[in-house]
Amino acid sequence: MGIRSQSLMKKGVVMNYNRDGDIKFKILDTVNYPEDIKKLNISELAGLSQDIRDFLIWNISQTGGHLGSNLGIVELTVAMHYIFDSPKDKIIWDVGHQSYVHKIITGRKDKFSGLRKKGGLSGFTKTSESEHDSFGAGHSSTALSAAIGIAQANILDKNNKNSADKTNNFYTIAVVGDGSFTGGLVYEALNNSKNCKNLIVILNDNEMSISKNVGTMSDYLANIRTTKKYFSFRNRVKNILSAIPLIGKLFVGFFQLITRMLRRSLYNATFFEQMGFDFLGPVDGHNIKNLLAVLNEAKTRKNPVFIHVKTQKGRGYKKAESSSVEYHSVGRFDIDEGIESESANLNGKEKIYSFALNFGNKICEAAEENKKICAITAAMAEGTELALFREKFPERFFDVGIAEGHAAVFSAGLAVGGYIPVYAVYSTFFQRAYDQILHDVALQNIHVVFCVDRAGLVGEDGATHHGMFDVAFLNHIPNITIFSPFSYQEFNESFDYAVNKINLPVVIRYPKGKENEEFNNKLLELNSENNLDYIYIKNNNAKYLIITYGRISKIAFEVYEKLNQIVGRDDPGAQQTPTACGRHPLSKGGEITDFIKLNKIKPVEYIFPEILKSDAENIILIEEGIEHGGVSEIIAAYLSKTNANKTVKIFAINNFVEQGEVGELFDMCGFDAEKICDKIMEDF
Amino acid sequence: MGIRSQSLMKKGVVMNYNRDGDIKFKILDTVNYPEDIKKLNISELAGLSQDIRDFLIWNISQTGGHLGSNLGIVELTVAMHYIFDSPKDKIIWDVGHQSYVHKIITGRKDKFSGLRKKGGLSGFTKTSESEHDSFGAGHSSTALSAAIGIAQANILDKNNKNSADKTNNFYTIAVVGDGSFTGGLVYEALNNSKNCKNLIVILNDNEMSISKNVGTMSDYLANIRTTKKYFSFRNRVKNILSAIPLIGKLFVGFFQLITRMLRRSLYNATFFEQMGFDFLGPVDGHNIKNLLAVLNEAKTRKNPVFIHVKTQKGRGYKKAESSSVEYHSVGRFDIDEGIESESANLNGKEKIYSFALNFGNKICEAAEENKKICAITAAMAEGTELALFREKFPERFFDVGIAEGHAAVFSAGLAVGGYIPVYAVYSTFFQRAYDQILHDVALQNIHVVFCVDRAGLVGEDGATHHGMFDVAFLNHIPNITIFSPFSYQEFNESFDYAVNKINLPVVIRYPKGKENEEFNNKLLELNSENNLDYIYIKNNNAKYLIITYGRISKIAFEVYEKLNQIVGRDDPGAQQTPTACGRHPLSKGGEITDFIKLNKIKPVEYIFPEILKSDAENIILIEEGIEHGGVSEIIAAYLSKTNANKTVKIFAINNFVEQGEVGELFDMCGFDAEKICDKIMEDF
Repeated sequence: MGIRSQSLMKKGVVMNYNRDGDIKFKILDTVNYPEDIKKLNISELAGLSQDIRDFLIWNISQTGGHLGSNLGIVELTVAMHYIFDSPKDKIIWDVGHQSYVHKIITGRKDKFSGLRKKGGLSGFTKTSESEHDSFGAGHSSTALSAAIGIAQANILDKNNKNSADKTNNFYTIAVVGDGSFTGGLVYEALNNSKNCKNLIVILNDNEMSISKNVGTMSDYLANIRTTKKYFSFRNRVKNILSAIPLIGKLFVGFFQLITRMLRRSLYNATFFEQMGFDFLGPVDGHNIKNLLAVLNEAKTRKNPVFIHVKTQKGRGYKKAESSSVEYHSVGRFDIDEGIESESANLNGKEKIYSFALNFGNKICEAAEENKKICAITAAMAEGTELALFREKFPERFFDVGIAEGHAAVFSAGLAVGGYIPVYAVYSTFFQRAYDQILHDVALQNIHVVFCVDRAGLVGEDGATHHGMFDVAFLNHIPNITIFSPFSYQEFNESFDYAVNKINLPVVIRYPKGKENEEFNNKLLELNSENNLDYIYIKNNNAKYLIITYGRISKIAFEVYEKLNQIVGRDDPGAQQTPTACGRHPLSKGGEITDFIKLNKIKPVEYIFPEILKSDAENIILIEEGIEHGGVSEIIAAYLSKTNANKTVKIFAINNFVEQGEVGELFDMCGFDAEKICDKIMEDF
Repeated sequence: MGIRSQSLMKKGVVMNYNRDGDIKFKILDTVNYPEDIKKLNISELAGLSQDIRDFLIWNISQTGGHLGSNLGIVELTVAMHYIFDSPKDKIIWDVGHQSYVHKIITGRKDKFSGLRKKGGLSGFTKTSESEHDSFGAGHSSTALSAAIGIAQANILDKNNKNSADKTNNFYTIAVVGDGSFTGGLVYEALNNSKNCKNLIVILNDNEMSISKNVGTMSDYLANIRTTKKYFSFRNRVKNILSAIPLIGKLFVGFFQLITRMLRRSLYNATFFEQMGFDFLGPVDGHNIKNLLAVLNEAKTRKNPVFIHVKTQKGRGYKKAESSSVEYHSVGRFDIDEGIESESANLNGKEKIYSFALNFGNKICEAAEENKKICAITAAMAEGTELALFREKFPERFFDVGIAEGHAAVFSAGLAVGGYIPVYAVYSTFFQRAYDQILHDVALQNIHVVFCVDRAGLVGEDGATHHGMFDVAFLNHIPNITIFSPFSYQEFNESFDYAVNKINLPVVIRYPKGKENEEFNNKLLELNSENNLDYIYIKNNNAKYLIITYGRISKIAFEVYEKLNQIVGRDDPGAQQTPTACGRHPLSKGGEITDFIKLNKIKPVEYIFPEILKSDAENIILIEEGIEHGGVSEIIAAYLSKTNANKTVKIFAINNFVEQGEVGELFDMCGFDAEKICDKIMEDF
């Protein structure tokens, strides 16, 4: 029995082990598909839930992943698969990070060792993975819209007189966290749910999205939650009302008024009822019996049904229960010790320094000086490291919920009011503010600073989360300046410029994780100019010019070094074989390769004269982003307009990218110095 | 006195005329700025409103513009400028098309003859136009977000202990139509209004956006509206409640229950109160006295205030009152006769045939055959001409309100449910669905057909409404196919293909207005191939190759003709002077110019081999869209990778484009055959 198995024992988990130390689960081992669940009785369902919880803790401690939200939704998922018939009934998980339990009991239990790994199980729902994943997700607040579409399709099927299959009725169930209710898409969908009789919306209310929820909707849900006697009260009043005729004629007019008023109060008690739903709940999301009852009740209703389920994030794992923000998404961890990841609150231990933390520190430093600086986040105070700012400058800190579009317009409003808004957002979620960036900020040329975190490939979260489109969707929007720093120093200088020296919209984008200090030092050493916009290592008679920016610059620089090496060896003109690392002259003329690392990537036109001045005829553009609309394409298109006779090669991304470690993904995308050199040698 | 003045007389308008027939307004002539209004008494304010209404009808009959919404908001705007102090107080108009009255009384009265014309007054709010326009607009549902930003800035100012000016308190007032409440951004903002004590939201409830409103929120507002005795009832119950202690101990427990229930009902009567607002109204939006009272009351509240104002679209102009959809936005019209525009319901008269109408007909024809075809619109049934489909196939028609993002995900859901969703949307509003197109449709590779209307420059609506970004923001999204037909026939063939022959996301984009029949015929005559993807007029030994697509093809073809002419004349190699219209050989070798008109513009890679096969070394790319990220740039970047030694010239759009007639805007953007030829002659 290994140490980890002992930990699970210590945790009090009831489980058996075989001789090899593999963990055995009494009930879960009998369950692979929803039909297996339907054979169990209620006490066995509770046991299954306990097994699943242990399975989750054990597996996520090995692979990392979304822990808290999945521990919170175990009983609900089990109950749903007991009551409904997936895949005939369509279950749609909003965001999808809480679908692990669903995956466990829909034939994917054995794949959890590969969770979020290259080629392995996705951390979100994915239609290509299983017929039980009715709709893919990753971004928040979309489930209800998709569910309504599917429900309407079913209504059309039923109404279609020519339809062969009259029995094709099914339920569409959207499971939406309370955090997602800060996103406007949910309301657009709620507004269109009226005729969806087979639609069931389950509010998975854990009082959190990733951070603590914000706003009045959150207060409102809390208000519903805390009205504990809501249902008994309702029934009591109903009984009293039915007794009213017996009281006599004394207060008839008054009672008629009261009755009408109470009826309004009873039948329109919640916003969701006002939106046309039958409202059921709140129900305890960890009580299987109650869950089965409420789901059964929902199936009998003639209107769309809204079920308010109260769950606890991290349920069953003490550490996750008490630190739900930190345990939302975790890396590998020791079950006894808990997590020690970057994002954890390490009780005084120093966090690993990252671009995000550097931003968090930098904005605090700047805000100390400049009282006009405000910080805005869309429910990502921890991830963007604005938590620090929140602590120091609470009055200038605004968490607007999962509302990226609103955050952009709100920021524009703050700027109009005389402040300097710095809106920190992940690249992938920034996509949701495209029109607001364009129509409300750029068109009006308003001074909003966008700090775009997780720019570039992010790794295990996969295709829905890579920050590979921001450059392409911003490049064509007039008036915006974009910086893509490769080091903390470059970020800090760009930030100072963006906040204090320009009165226009500015984007600063930076990757997940750390800078590469060794590479930075090397590059700075070679760079002769002190220039915010770019670093240029220029030589005479260069054959190649490499242009790149951001994190991928490191690989581009390896290409630079390799080219000098390889071409030096093969080139009869070279008088000396260079070693791997720059600075070794190939010939009296110097290096064979010019190297430009951009920091300002939009507008990029400023660099065109420099490119033309290079002797290199072979231009190599390396970009960690989608090719079409990217910086490389703009440069290449420009060169095609000139008579400079330069031939271009672009290394960029050309399709959606799956999950995996960033290094693996770089390989998949062809970002490998050796391979890039090979291609250059082939073609040039 | 001219005919039009007589019409206004017939209409019963009380006005005076000077000798030249200029219209005189008794009160409006004394009002240029808000301070002039503050000198008037209530009956004068009513007279001013009448003057403004006449001014609007008169002027819009001359220039065209948004009529209905502005006639509906006259008294409200007058009352707001009476009670509040613009520009110190910030008035934010959602969408902005209802801001004409505001413009009239904030110094812009004399500029109305230039409304929506090149260099003239914008049809929307625009900060560069006046300090009274606190925030620019054009797209729906943004006002509240901006207002909250401005209000928060003011709160920061007030809390700032170092602030020199302690008196800098102001109100921020957002005026939002009920139609805008179908857009999710409003809810994202409502959720963040909690601490904005100086925020006043005015719901301008005319029961319409452009079309009739949809959804449960609309029902809900109607429910509030029709509760006519709401306020008197509320007061009556309050009085009775205060009398309860006198009734004796008989039903004490019961009454305590009732009291609690009533209090909930009274103090949380509306969703807006639940969201933290003091709710005032509904109030008659055409009763100046009541409006002044409610606005004054709003100023005294310690919470953010939500005022429900009932207005009537088209108020005061009978034709507009009874046909509010048709009179939302109009061209020039005769005051007696009313409108006869394309969009008008002409009672049996035939509409002018347009791309939109062609689409409306085509989808109905296709839906007759294929019962799986559904139509989706985001509150644009009339504009997109889906009204026809709504009439014929109501069960397969879905108007989701001003909710472009939801519409995209909802469409994806319909497709997952086995249907073929055709989502018709204006290019500029399609921007609002960027993330949903990418994350929910393209990434999952779902068969949704997007019919993108108003692609390209739209004219008088100006910078907020041009469809000049769709190609750039779609070009980099994998899995999407885009067609950009130049004729109805090409549209129809593309539509058949998109709906029946491909199982992937497809965009078909087409401009506002009509095809150019004469040009189409000319082009088809010259085209030898029968090919859905492109038309190629190919010659031997061509010097130029023009590549273009969509509406601008006509101008590109003029360039083609001119080049043949000019180069023919100047080129000593030419043996014959060609006439203007193609087909006349310059020399034995044939034409001097190759011409490719694309229909399929994404993926565009299929055309690369054809380009390489052309003898032309000078490639001229003409595109009615933003250059960066466009089709031209992709082609140019490709050519820079080859050794084909072709030099490129791109004619596309490089900045936001102001308002004006489409022809004028083409000139401004350099889309003029003569000018393009000149540039080609200069450079090549």
